[in-house]
Amino acid sequence: MKNVVLIGIGLIGGSMVKDLKKLHPETTIIGVDKNPDHINQALASQLIDEKGDINVVKQADVVILSIPVDASVKMLPEILDLIQDDALVIDVGSTKQDICKAVEQHPNRRNYLAAHPIAGTEFSGPQAAINDLFRGKTNIICDVEKTAFKLQEKALSIFADLGMRIRYMNPESHDKHIAYVSHLSHISSFMLGKTVIEKERNERDIFDMAGSGFASTVRLAKSSPDMWTPIFKQNKSNVIETLEEYITNLNQFKKLLELDDFEAIFNEMKNTNRIKDILKGIA
Amino acid sequence: MKNVVLIGIGLIGGSMVKDLKKLHPETTIIGVDKNPDHINQALASQLIDEKGDINVVKQADVVILSIPVDASVKMLPEILDLIQDDALVIDVGSTKQDICKAVEQHPNRRNYLAAHPIAGTEFSGPQAAINDLFRGKTNIICDVEKTAFKLQEKALSIFADLGMRIRYMNPESHDKHIAYVSHLSHISSFMLGKTVIEKERNERDIFDMAGSGFASTVRLAKSSPDMWTPIFKQNKSNVIETLEEYITNLNQFKKLLELDDFEAIFNEMKNTNRIKDILKGIA
Repeated sequence: MKNVVLIGIGLIGGSMVKDLKKLHPETTIIGVDKNPDHINQALASQLIDEKGDINVVKQADVVILSIPVDASVKMLPEILDLIQDDALVIDVGSTKQDICKAVEQHPNRRNYLAAHPIAGTEFSGPQAAINDLFRGKTNIICDVEKTAFKLQEKALSIFADLGMRIRYMNPESHDKHIAYVSHLSHISSFMLGKTVIEKERNERDIFDMAGSGFASTVRLAKSSPDMWTPIFKQNKSNVIETLEEYITNLNQFKKLLELDDFEAIFNEMKNTNRIKDILKGIA
Repeated sequence: MKNVVLIGIGLIGGSMVKDLKKLHPETTIIGVDKNPDHINQALASQLIDEKGDINVVKQADVVILSIPVDASVKMLPEILDLIQDDALVIDVGSTKQDICKAVEQHPNRRNYLAAHPIAGTEFSGPQAAINDLFRGKTNIICDVEKTAFKLQEKALSIFADLGMRIRYMNPESHDKHIAYVSHLSHISSFMLGKTVIEKERNERDIFDMAGSGFASTVRLAKSSPDMWTPIFKQNKSNVIETLEEYITNLNQFKKLLELDDFEAIFNEMKNTNRIKDILKGIA
């Protein structure tokens, strides 16, 4: 692995090359980013060794594509047009259906591997990159059979370097289920933040009353709108479905309050306490 | 401070006496709890020195009342009936209006101080008690002027021992604002957990896809229904108001998705990102 090209130098891609460079100091990391500040920060902090433009993918052994999912869908075919015969291109976006469809018929489809590492923090940009972000986390690989066998092996060795567990899934299932366990959480958190900010606009010191419970529940409302707007756009129909079910459950809870049916409210919470066992092992 | 009586040996009260005993080893901590397992666990772990029943409050210098808020409202007048002349009774419940009203006319009202330490974890019971839970956290004191001046001083010295910042508020404002910054978070979290569990009931390994973002957003869904049902009951009208605003915001977000108005969706998220600055300093 002589040259790794990272397109989009942020939390996810940045954390990946940080681990890879530590394990493979001989590898040259070349960063591509449309934001010159990100390039400069990444060079200054030695997150990348060199900067480049899209044409550097011609020299890449591995390309990691880590940009907003609408930009990925446009750029992936261009990258596949340019690469060497044995190059591996990995994208790490949070939606998988549109991007897999975009390159379905591409003559170099076999050079591409669709991945979604389930890891992150609420921070973004090259300065958010940290070591060991992916250790013990799940990485979902979609349509693995469409990637050349040797390049599957190469990708798996990279993911093993990062310490990830692998799961295989088709892009449709991925997008459907991830809407529940990730996209909906982001909306619930953003709207909780919005509701409280709107209400308490004129009483700023009310937030002194907020504890770690509130902080935990609105943590995702710090996430980047640049990343999340295209995710919601691409996964619109699944996301709407999850939102409808969530709103239905909230309305039902409100109804129980109005009816003074506190036994039912107790049971709702008791049943949902099962989340304790379900989430055992997730940070 | 010779005798501290703790009524309700759980996360909050247990963590309080754990810190107090460390600072004042000469103080005897007497535990009262209707659950004999809690008593036994607390004696075994030396969280309390002795067990007792309600009548031990007759010997108390300080009583800490830390039980579900419906039980507090019933028990506080009985405690005030029994105590010594210079005893201080503190309750630490998450609602303040009903309990302040319940003892408004009590002849020993001046022995009582209404507090709400904004601290906690999603765990409960005596084994959840930890040191330094309250350090740097906010403690809201309601109707302080109704407590005898000497007992205010005693209470403030205890809260200083625990490392808390004090804020003063009337019970009505407390219940109204805490509905936004705490009670609503719990409902949003419980209903998020419910929505995902219901959907993924038959696909248990889907939870492998859940990351730390989901875990953070549903953390409060692990909370105790015994504690939370009476909180929602006592603060019903405020909670319903917050829920209505939250549901309205979620419906509006869904509408924007349906209309493909992704510019507005971007702006919703961008505006809510302010939560970063607002929450600076909260764990």
